[in-house]
Amino acid sequence: MPISLGELATRFGCELIGDPDAVVSKVSSLQNAGPESLSFLSSSSFKQQLPATRAAAVILRPEDAVDSPVASLLSDDPYAMYARMAAIVCPLPTVEPGIHPSAIIADSARVAPSAQLEPGVVVGERTQIGENVYVGPGTVIGPDCIIGDDCCFIANVTLVQQVEIGARGRFHPGVVIGADGFGNAMTPDGWIKVPQVGGVRIGRDVEIGANTTIDCGAIDDTVIEDGVRIDNLCMIAHNVHIGEHTAMAAITGISGSTTIGKRCMFSGASGTVGHITVCDDVIVAAKSFLTKDVTQPGTYAASFPAQPVRTWAKQLARFRRLGRLIERVKKLEK
Amino acid sequence: MPISLGELATRFGCELIGDPDAVVSKVSSLQNAGPESLSFLSSSSFKQQLPATRAAAVILRPEDAVDSPVASLLSDDPYAMYARMAAIVCPLPTVEPGIHPSAIIADSARVAPSAQLEPGVVVGERTQIGENVYVGPGTVIGPDCIIGDDCCFIANVTLVQQVEIGARGRFHPGVVIGADGFGNAMTPDGWIKVPQVGGVRIGRDVEIGANTTIDCGAIDDTVIEDGVRIDNLCMIAHNVHIGEHTAMAAITGISGSTTIGKRCMFSGASGTVGHITVCDDVIVAAKSFLTKDVTQPGTYAASFPAQPVRTWAKQLARFRRLGRLIERVKKLEK
Amino acid sequence: MPISLGELATRFGCELIGDPDAVVSKVSSLQNAGPESLSFLSSSSFKQQLPATRAAAVILRPEDAVDSPVASLLSDDPYAMYARMAAIVCPLPTVEPGIHPSAIIADSARVAPSAQLEPGVVVGERTQIGENVYVGPGTVIGPDCIIGDDCCFIANVTLVQQVEIGARGRFHPGVVIGADGFGNAMTPDGWIKVPQVGGVRIGRDVEIGANTTIDCGAIDDTVIEDGVRIDNLCMIAHNVHIGEHTAMAAITGISGSTTIGKRCMFSGASGTVGHITVCDDVIVAAKSFLTKDVTQPGTYAASFPAQPVRTWAKQLARFRRLGRLIERVKKLEK
Repeated sequence: MPISLGELATRFGCELIGDPDAVVSKVSSLQNAGPESLSFLSSSSFKQQLPATRAAAVILRPEDAVDSPVASLLSDDPYAMYARMAAIVCPLPTVEPGIHPSAIIADSARVAPSAQLEPGVVVGERTQIGENVYVGPGTVIGPDCIIGDDCCFIANVTLVQQVEIGARGRFHPGVVIGADGFGNAMTPDGWIKVPQVGGVRIGRDVEIGANTTIDCGAIDDTVIEDGVRIDNLCMIAHNVHIGEHTAMAAITGISGSTTIGKRCMFSGASGTVGHITVCDDVIVAAKSFLTKDVTQPGTYAASFPAQPVRTWAKQLARFRRLGRLIERVKKLEK
Repeated sequence: MPISLGELATRFGCELIGDPDAVVSKVSSLQNAGPESLSFLSSSSFKQQLPATRAAAVILRPEDAVDSPVASLLSDDPYAMYARMAAIVCPLPTVEPGIHPSAIIADSARVAPSAQLEPGVVVGERTQIGENVYVGPGTVIGPDCIIGDDCCFIANVTLVQQVEIGARGRFHPGVVIGADGFGNAMTPDGWIKVPQVGGVRIGRDVEIGANTTIDCGAIDDTVIEDGVRIDNLCMIAHNVHIGEHTAMAAITGISGSTTIGKRCMFSGASGTVGHITVCDDVIVAAKSFLTKDVTQPGTYAASFPAQPVRTWAKQLARFRRLGRLIERVKKLEK
Repeated sequence: MPISLGELATRFGCELIGDPDAVVSKVSSLQNAGPESLSFLSSSSFKQQLPATRAAAVILRPEDAVDSPVASLLSDDPYAMYARMAAIVCPLPTVEPGIHPSAIIADSARVAPSAQLEPGVVVGERTQIGENVYVGPGTVIGPDCIIGDDCCFIANVTLVQQVEIGARGRFHPGVVIGADGFGNAMTPDGWIKVPQVGGVRIGRDVEIGANTTIDCGAIDDTVIEDGVRIDNLCMIAHNVHIGEHTAMAAITGISGSTTIGKRCMFSGASGTVGHITVCDDVIVAAKSFLTKDVTQPGTYAASFPAQPVRTWAKQLARFRRLGRLIERVKKLEK
């Protein structure tokens, strides 16, 4: 949506250096920007691209404005400011109320008139869908779900049953919420299934990435609090509880009954074992996993960066001979 | 389904301490139980919740009964007993025979009259679907599949082709079975695809978690034996063979042509390389992976629990200087 | 498709030892081959199966022909030759032009008359679908996509929007391309979403495995070059660039804005951090991940093979006491 720099500056309380009547109609990287582009500079690693940018305007820190060859919108947090302004310049598509004739809605379901249900959508018994909800093609929402206003299910999402979601949730394709937890009891005749009868409760402003799975609780519910952000291909097991504004990058796995605090950050391919409690403000490094309760905020890690394979092979051999090295030191000490 | 404690005790050969006419109609955790709840105590970590429970009855070990404030159902394995009783109290929904008008069934497919096919289901040529099978919305079952009686496909499952499944299988949303294995031959012009012409054979009583993928065999079939349980987001590559009652937790990957024995257990984010053989009764710890044949039952591990990042950074530095340390010891020895 | 050995030999310029009129109509492993089977021997680990094979013909290296009890097709690269011949013997199903009545095509979309669209397919506004494209059941192709000739989407694939794909791409079930990248800016009020407005550009001859996700770019596009092969359950984050003929095995994750060179190979459960550049011809070992720019071709690793748990526990204890060991050596040195 075209908007003038003056209007953007006023709306978000930014100082503008440049022509307030200049208009931007798209966002671009510094490098690929053109005369209708809004761009931003938040990381010093892109600073060398600033002098050559052809953007209409750049959002940047006050101290970087001197190097800007174009209009500047000043902000102490250019990335967050860009996020806000980009949402104006490139708004999400608006919801067009209506139910596609190929969608199948159970008799006892209630769908708000302002919701949009796309081709092939299936809605189960007793499910309620709020105002302005977008349910993309192929999405299956099972029975006994409650979907808050302004939620968006892009396409081919599956909510199995008993899933409750707050307002403004955003769910990418392939997401599965409310499938059975992995509950099995060993017997002399092999595994028997432990019925998984809990639901899933998800707060407001939650976004879940493509092909991520959030299992239902075994008895009580699995809980995701407000503002949580989960990337693609993550696994949230039964009865996990994730605190507000915690974020998890792709291929992270949280095992059953673990409780994660608020504002935690899990890097890619990280995770935790089950049945532990992690306090607020914990950061877990890539490929690392927590194996016991964490009571102190901070960063936790345990991974080895890849090295040339010959270097690594030597290191591995040394590691395996540690016992012998210790013996040799003992001998020397005697 | 409401059922009296007396009937439960008789049906499963349990001793009951309490009123046999008392009725339970749901299952609950000890903490959240009410007067119609059946609960259980299997792990000592929940023992402190027992005295305050308001359940109608608790399944527990005989030695714990003294601390139960309510009726007790005695079992040496309360978790397995709970699994059995919960299946009675909270039965799975019954299959309602019929094919939704929006389902598309190939002419040469055969669907048992007792099966239920939900909206948007697609069934390919020559595929056979057994008695009481539930095929949830959006599920695609390709050509030349054979689906055993009482199987259940929750929703949005895909069987590509040539998949044979025994009775009572349970497949969660997003499961993909029979997609091409990862077979590529390098040539001077780049990769060329190796046709993947095998099928997948799955035994009875198998459960596969959401978004897990099981590839078809390259030439011979990929095989999953009876009673196997696989959690979400796992990868079973082409020509893998998994023995009876083996279980795998989420994000586990088994590479091509590997044979896994019976009753193995893979913890979360574990796996194996390809072309190895793993004997029966092997347990693999979380985040660990097997790199060669395993011939001895037991537990195998190789992972590092996350530590505070400064501790870890020091450890990593020490690890990298191991070669120098060895040199220093050698010098001392001289 | 039945074909004579003579025709195969001529077509691919192979020397044939045996009857040129003998016909093969299927492919088999050496062990399970019958009189209509074409088989191959590429790895020495299967050599002991050669003398007993009942195949009609075996593709093998000239030096192995002496041990073949049946007709031999000679090739210096039997695996690549098998790949080519198997594609003739077991051709992919041909595309049957037409749009199933249950498919929903947006008014402004253009679908080539030779394309086949299966039940439940949805095609968005302005999307173009090329000649001989197969779009399997339940596949959703969102707006503004361009699909090259001869592409194949097996079933239940989702392209969100702005995805451009070259000729002959092959996409397995559950693949999600073009979902939002994981872009969030932290503010005092929690995360705010950074709009993800880029697209995805995929070259020719690309194959993507089941349930893999490739996110759209944040601003500029995510790019996958010609001939790339990606296995199941992989994650390609926003603005990643993957060079020609690079291959990635399952559960590999490439973090945002990382550039990968040509002909790289990522083993299972490997990956990289974000914002790094990896040169051509890099191999990453299983479970290993790159944490900085790689400028030298070669193999990189950092993983520990699983060991019996007691051995591992001792190793872990020794590792943790490394600091103390170093102190002891220091003391000895004084």
